[in-house]
Order: sequence, then C-alpha cells, then structure tokens
Amino acid sequence: MIDRLIEKIIALKNPTVVGLDPRLNLIPDHVKEAAFAEYGKTPEGAAAAFLKFNQDIIDAVCDLVPAVKPQIAMYEMLGIPGVKAFADTVKYAKKKGLIVIGDIKRSDIASTAEAYAAAHIGTTDVEGESFAAFDEDMITVNPYLGSDSIDPFFKAMQARDRGMFILCKTSNPGGGEFQDLIVDGMPLYEKVGLRIEDWGAAFRGSYGFSDIGAVVGATYPEQGVRLRKLLPHTFFLVPGYGAQGATAKDLAGCFNEDGIGAIVNSSRGIIGAWKSAKYNTQFTPEEYAQASRAAIIDMQQDLWGALNA
Amino acid sequence: MIDRLIEKIIALKNPTVVGLDPRLNLIPDHVKEAAFAEYGKTPEGAAAAFLKFNQDIIDAVCDLVPAVKPQIAMYEMLGIPGVKAFADTVKYAKKKGLIVIGDIKRSDIASTAEAYAAAHIGTTDVEGESFAAFDEDMITVNPYLGSDSIDPFFKAMQARDRGMFILCKTSNPGGGEFQDLIVDGMPLYEKVGLRIEDWGAAFRGSYGFSDIGAVVGATYPEQGVRLRKLLPHTFFLVPGYGAQGATAKDLAGCFNEDGIGAIVNSSRGIIGAWKSAKYNTQFTPEEYAQASRAAIIDMQQDLWGALNA
Repeated sequence: MIDRLIEKIIALKNPTVVGLDPRLNLIPDHVKEAAFAEYGKTPEGAAAAFLKFNQDIIDAVCDLVPAVKPQIAMYEMLGIPGVKAFADTVKYAKKKGLIVIGDIKRSDIASTAEAYAAAHIGTTDVEGESFAAFDEDMITVNPYLGSDSIDPFFKAMQARDRGMFILCKTSNPGGGEFQDLIVDGMPLYEKVGLRIEDWGAAFRGSYGFSDIGAVVGATYPEQGVRLRKLLPHTFFLVPGYGAQGATAKDLAGCFNEDGIGAIVNSSRGIIGAWKSAKYNTQFTPEEYAQASRAAIIDMQQDLWGALNA
Repeated sequence: MIDRLIEKIIALKNPTVVGLDPRLNLIPDHVKEAAFAEYGKTPEGAAAAFLKFNQDIIDAVCDLVPAVKPQIAMYEMLGIPGVKAFADTVKYAKKKGLIVIGDIKRSDIASTAEAYAAAHIGTTDVEGESFAAFDEDMITVNPYLGSDSIDPFFKAMQARDRGMFILCKTSNPGGGEFQDLIVDGMPLYEKVGLRIEDWGAAFRGSYGFSDIGAVVGATYPEQGVRLRKLLPHTFFLVPGYGAQGATAKDLAGCFNEDGIGAIVNSSRGIIGAWKSAKYNTQFTPEEYAQASRAAIIDMQQDLWGALNA
C-alpha cells in the first residue's frame, strides 16, 4: 500500500493530503441552501451539503494531490445520514483516483479490533458473501491497548493491500500529557514509535517504508526530526500544518533528504480557503472549490520549497 | 449521570451490564433466516437480525439489569445498515428504561473530540435546530491524546446529564504493553487513573462517585484492588468477566465494601448463553432470550455472592 502512496507523491511532487472535515460554517451558503431546499434543515440536509461540498473539492484537487483524509467524527455528528455521506465521500474520492485515509482513530481488544478492521479496510462475511463496509485504503489507529489490538488489522492489510497510521505523537497542545512521559529513558511516544517500526517490519515496500505508518504532529519540529531518524522505515502522517500553526519549515524534519517520508495534512486551510483573508478577494463563495485548488498549489510550493531549501 | 446508574444498581442489586455485541454466529438460525428472507443475505439482512436479536434480549433482561453496552465496532462491520441498527438498539434500550453505555472508544484532538461529543452524548446544531445523533447515556473514551481531547466532552455531560468511562487498564493480554510501563514511579495506567480522578472532581454525584469513570479490566485482580483505593471517586466499568476468563472473585476488589463502585460487563456470556454447554440443554435456540435471562440471573448471584462473602 505505502508504495502506491509514495509513487503518487513522487509523480505529483506533492506530499500533501486534504483533510475532508466539513462543518456547516465552512460550507458556502448557496451549497447549504440547495441541500436544505431538498432535505430541510435536518441532518439529511446537512449531510447532502457535506457530500456536495466534498465532491466539488475532490473534483478540483484530484489531479494535484495523492490522497484525502476524511475525519469520520464530523460525519458521525449527523448520525446515519452523516455516516452515509462519509461512505459516499470515500467512494467518490477513490473513483477519482485518490487514496483515502479514513481518519477514524479506532482501537479495541482483539475480537473488537477485528470488527473495526473488517469495517474499514477489510470485508465482512454475511453467510458466505463478502461485503466491504467503508473500504478506506488506509486508516488511523490508537495504540493505547497494545499489540493484540493492532495485529487484527494485519490480515486485511495483507489480503487487500491496505495500510494504517498509528498515533505516535499527536499535534494537540495536550498531546504530551501522557505521550511525553519518560519510560525506560525515553518519552512514551518514542517507545510507541519503536513498536510501530517493529510492527511494520513485515510490511515494507520497495521504498523501504512500511504499510504501518505513524501519526507525528508537525507542531513539535524537533520531535519530528528525532523520530525521522529513530524510525527509518516508518512513513509519517503529519497533521498540524496551517490552521494548527505549523509551517513548512517546522515539518521539513519529518522528511528524508530525498523529500520522501511523510505526508502532510491540511483541513481547514484547504477546504475553508474560500473564507480566508488570503483567498476571499480572489474567489467568490461560488468558487470555493477553485479556492481550495489555489490553496493546494500554494501549500505544495511552500512545502516543496522548504524540502528543497 | 453516575447517580442514576448507581441508584439502578442498588434497586436491582445487580452491578452488571449486558454487552450487546452481536455477531452472526451468536444469533440463532431462525432469527437470521427471517431477516434474510426479508432483506436478502446482505448487510441489511444481517443488521435486521442484529436488531431483532438485541430487542428480544433487551425485553428479556430489562427488569434485571441497569444498563446495556453495545459495542459499535460490531455494527460498523455492516456499514450504514449496521450503524442504523446500533442507533435503533440505543433507542430501544432507552425506551425500555435501560442506561446505554456506547462502547465507542473514540478520541481525537479538541475540535474533533467536540464532534464526537456532539455525535454520541450531545447534540448537533443544524441552522439553529438541535439534533441528537446517537444519544447514548455514557460512552467509552481513549486517553492517549491527553486533557484537551477529554475536556470537549464535559459540555455535553453537564448540559445533558451524561457520563463517560475513560480507558485506564484494559482487559486484553497486550493491555500492559504500554499501560504497565513505569512513569514517575508508577505504571502508566495509574498515572492515567489519577488524571481520570482529577478530571472527575467537578462531576461528583451524591454517592461520591464522578460522571467520569474508568475502564478497569477484571483480568488483573490485584490491579483492580489497588486502583479501587487509589481512585476513590472513580466508578469502574469492568470488562473481562466470563468469556475473557475473569471470575466474580477476581473482580470483587473493584468494589467498595458496600458493594458499590463498579459495573461488570459480560457480552458473549449473556447474549450467546443459548449456545453454551451450561444453558443449551435447558433452552432451545428459539428460547435464546430466556437463556440470556437465566445467564444474567446466574451472573447476578455469582457477583452478589462474591461481594457479600
């Protein structure tokens, strides 16, 4: 799986992923009004607005970025219609050739982790017939429950060429509260990182990286540099760029010298570009998808510049 | 919230919760056949079987137990129809007077945790109208991301009298891999436990326990004893009884001397009772819900006996 992602990153010269985390306040009025006119001011209406908004952005950026990362929480807020909009977004993005990273941060004991694996990267058997429920390419997973909560994902990864990113060092201000605690002479997140490197040993592809990556927040640049060295076979999913405050320079350390080794997420910075001071004079609300495209081009240049500096 | 749970436990003399974690192999053929006849051998058919199975068990045990705990992973496996069966199960159990603990183990950075809170214990605003998406009474949450991933749940807890259980020491064999690592002279799970006790300080009810409880696996009896003393205001949700191997004696230490302080989950042991050697001579597959009722009565006596020994 990771080879597919890296090949797309190289071909597009663009190690970025668009976080498809819609909220009603990020969606232009005309999109909401059309959806509410059809479905009412209801979760169904909001979900229809989410899907239309995502589809337009996907159409506008699918030739520029390797991947999108829908955050399932935003869709769960709308209940069943929301979860359906999540599933439809995954399907649409894949149809447009994008790799889909389901940002689900699931985790549980083995028998339950098996069910999550089936739900998101594997298949569910119903009396001999096989169904893929959400069918993402890669997912995010929480490591707190240890190895036997991670193993159950391996089968679906192998059988269906899928991957995952395990939380290592998160981008939020409180991320260090437990993750930075010192265990055996190192912070817990490094300990987790070393286990991620181990879990991934059986899943390495032709670039030397594994299908089991790590989430490494860009808001802590020195830690990114150190983790890059400590975990040479672990690809990083890096949140925190843009709205969360990290700059391209902050996260250059998450990459190897050849510019490979990480994919950087931006959500609000891309999907909410049309509202931002930087783009709202250049684009009307009707042109929101074009504003997202411009923001991706700028982000690519910003990152590429920092990586080649 | 926790007062409501404790009052029900005292009134029923029963600190147990039924894990509604259906799988097709736990559901009798006649239930599946009826569902498949209506919806085909499809996720829709399987979800219909899940819901009918849950409803029958809820009907059979709702006068005996304070709460049920549906595990959302089992439903996500079936995609949208499965998630709808989860939502319908929550609704049905609440209508029957049960407290519903959504076993969702969600967690994310603050802005995303807010969305999970809205989805599961709070409400979502759609243009001034308020909707409750899944509307559980309590949920399970993963602590790896720290305080600012926990705070966003407080608002919904306060506004709507809800609660949560944060993972502390899980019941699985690998639970110790990170949770037992020594930080500041104590295992990580104790450190997490002490934070749970702190977070809960503002949420204490009339029994001295807080709306923020902890998940403490029954498979580690000494740890349960120690945590019970260390976290006097933290109510425990205890998985691991029955199918995972823990006995009533193993988990007596999770309770105070008055028999209050924990609620013990059993999933397969209750919902799959009809298949077990202990009950399958006494009950036919058609009587599966009655077998669950018998298993709950036995579990209550087993626990009550151990607590009063």
